[in-house]
Amino acid sequence: MDFPLFFDGAEIEARLCELAEASRQNGALWRASYTVEDARARALLGMWLNARGFSTRRDAAGNQYARLEGSAGGKTVLVGSHLDTVRDAGIYDGAAGIVLGMFALEALHRRFGAPRRPVELVAMQEEEGSRFPAASYFGSRAINGLVGKDELCLADDAGVTLAQALEAAGFPPQRLPEAVRHDLHCYIEPHIEQGGVLEQTGAQLGIVRAITGMALLTVRVEGRPDHAGTTPMDMRRDALHAACAMICTLPGLVRGDLGDTVTVGTLSLAPGSSNVVPGAVTFSVDVRSADEKRLARAVQDIRRACARAAAAGCTASVEQEFSTPPVQLDTALTAMLRESAQALELTHREMVSGAGHDCMHFAKSLPCTMLFLPSRGGRSHCPEEYTAPEQLAYGARVLSHLLYRIAWQA
Amino acid sequence: MDFPLFFDGAEIEARLCELAEASRQNGALWRASYTVEDARARALLGMWLNARGFSTRRDAAGNQYARLEGSAGGKTVLVGSHLDTVRDAGIYDGAAGIVLGMFALEALHRRFGAPRRPVELVAMQEEEGSRFPAASYFGSRAINGLVGKDELCLADDAGVTLAQALEAAGFPPQRLPEAVRHDLHCYIEPHIEQGGVLEQTGAQLGIVRAITGMALLTVRVEGRPDHAGTTPMDMRRDALHAACAMICTLPGLVRGDLGDTVTVGTLSLAPGSSNVVPGAVTFSVDVRSADEKRLARAVQDIRRACARAAAAGCTASVEQEFSTPPVQLDTALTAMLRESAQALELTHREMVSGAGHDCMHFAKSLPCTMLFLPSRGGRSHCPEEYTAPEQLAYGARVLSHLLYRIAWQA
Repeated sequence: MDFPLFFDGAEIEARLCELAEASRQNGALWRASYTVEDARARALLGMWLNARGFSTRRDAAGNQYARLEGSAGGKTVLVGSHLDTVRDAGIYDGAAGIVLGMFALEALHRRFGAPRRPVELVAMQEEEGSRFPAASYFGSRAINGLVGKDELCLADDAGVTLAQALEAAGFPPQRLPEAVRHDLHCYIEPHIEQGGVLEQTGAQLGIVRAITGMALLTVRVEGRPDHAGTTPMDMRRDALHAACAMICTLPGLVRGDLGDTVTVGTLSLAPGSSNVVPGAVTFSVDVRSADEKRLARAVQDIRRACARAAAAGCTASVEQEFSTPPVQLDTALTAMLRESAQALELTHREMVSGAGHDCMHFAKSLPCTMLFLPSRGGRSHCPEEYTAPEQLAYGARVLSHLLYRIAWQA
Repeated sequence: MDFPLFFDGAEIEARLCELAEASRQNGALWRASYTVEDARARALLGMWLNARGFSTRRDAAGNQYARLEGSAGGKTVLVGSHLDTVRDAGIYDGAAGIVLGMFALEALHRRFGAPRRPVELVAMQEEEGSRFPAASYFGSRAINGLVGKDELCLADDAGVTLAQALEAAGFPPQRLPEAVRHDLHCYIEPHIEQGGVLEQTGAQLGIVRAITGMALLTVRVEGRPDHAGTTPMDMRRDALHAACAMICTLPGLVRGDLGDTVTVGTLSLAPGSSNVVPGAVTFSVDVRSADEKRLARAVQDIRRACARAAAAGCTASVEQEFSTPPVQLDTALTAMLRESAQALELTHREMVSGAGHDCMHFAKSLPCTMLFLPSRGGRSHCPEEYTAPEQLAYGARVLSHLLYRIAWQA
């Protein structure tokens, strides 16, 4: 098929900049859910969507929708991402998926008229959990009926609960169940990669086949604090040496060649004086895999390795803080995305998302797929986050190609 | 020689307890130099010394002396230690050397009359540097003319300078040079071990042949912070992994079999979040040896190992914060101490002091020796510090045996 739709990357970038400007405080972007920064960006987005002929609405969780009715009716194709950001964010994470969806749907509608299946664009709430950390993915979980009973009592840094924040933004929390949808056909999420794989491999597009599962462990190593000068090497029970030996073995315990990762991101020791042998060390182990069995095996191997490395006079305890299982995206939909990339002659790479996304919560009940656009230098969650206009442009093009096949040709 | 002097360990311990009681604040012992806690202990000590027939005086640095004139005149044999303590101290570190000296000299004087050589007991100031950290060993350095020009401007936590503290305690700082002594024959320092070697090897007495030299290095490892989920293992520049690899190699770079040590007592990493690959790690390396060449070689080897271990995408810089050369104690005097231990059938062990002592500053110009008594569990600088009464008793006995040979038989 000689696909007729092309996009102006500079225009897409301009919209992302305008959304960011609407939400800046003292120069920094933090679009927290249910705040005035959120409201300003949503007002702007709503204006754009209405001007393009979409009907818009907000659901009971504050998620924002724009709908194109389908001539053949039936279940709805959903495309989009989250509008909230981390603190001091870049302009692409989340918002890019919404703006790409808006451009794709507008161009499809203008060129091909109404779709056969109904299509909706969604701009979700609180994916990052930057206001309510324990309520990450709140918007997508509300749509999928996955909000926990006690979540509405969670408070932000100022002590405002999620229930109060919803209420104040005009969404009475008792109506939250109304956000649940049973009329969806599939969910498609365009997103920036937030890593450096596409850039480093030179692929234009990432086709996400799974979202990684993760376990977060805390390892506590206990030795004995001793005077650094008066304690001979062979009389020590140095907790840091035991910890370092453990940390050195960790990469060998995961299948890095299959994309699995293990990361020690925090480490603290006590007493923490240059002339005292460390008596205790605590460190975190973040282990991720797209394969549930490999994840479970890695956790088991890490537990064993810590116990072994701790043998020399030290003891180690390993505690699992939490774990989330990996999520496999829909094979058929992912194959369609690959075909679209091939049809448009975009170099692409099948990959696993190492970060969580709203898509995870749709994938429990719906066919889902995600497409990644490159992040310069792999940077994300910072003002340096960048995806070039031409990348946004081909992202909108491949997205519209896929949507055309799903909703217009259906 | 059938040496006639014996000591009551319980009595020695009782004096140490009384000195500690004189200096406690809210139950905790911190006898900082030139404070009311210091003054109270020195008043008590002065009373005991005067009651035993010694003439006492304070020098211009606030060091306290008790003197026995020698019938043959000549240079003075000095015995003692420091009276100041760390915060929340035990009762033995420093004070034990003074009280053992007092008991030994009193018993010798009572049994054998005036010595041939003059003998003095000294109770020094600010060895620990717990009030003026950059002025450690201030008392012994004042006696040896080793006080730096700018030291008197150093301030304590309350902003009081060392000059002001001296002045307030009745020691006009301009008179400090008067503390210097050129009339000393030798210096003998009894001290608790502050480590666990004597206890673990079952030796009653440590005969110190050297005080360790030390270098303190700071290693900074620079990698790149990356998202723990989105960065494949082979694309990382993990500063913590590089640091752990370095730390694991360190023990192999020192001669632990000869008593050399290497310790990483502090480590911090950035950014320090469980889901971010560490981009930078800073750690301290405390390396000690009684042999100057081995110390220099170890520092060089550590620098090389850090550079090597940093090869995989990270860089490392190694900075030397400071170094102090090892100090060899007097061979002849140390041999005499060993003979005294043998004469009294005390099991003993030649050792290197891994901690610094006042003795270092005398050893630059005088024959010196140190004797160590066991520390239970190797504990020191804490309330759990403990040396048993019978150990204090044989300590006083071997000290008096040595002093007899040096000052009475001379």
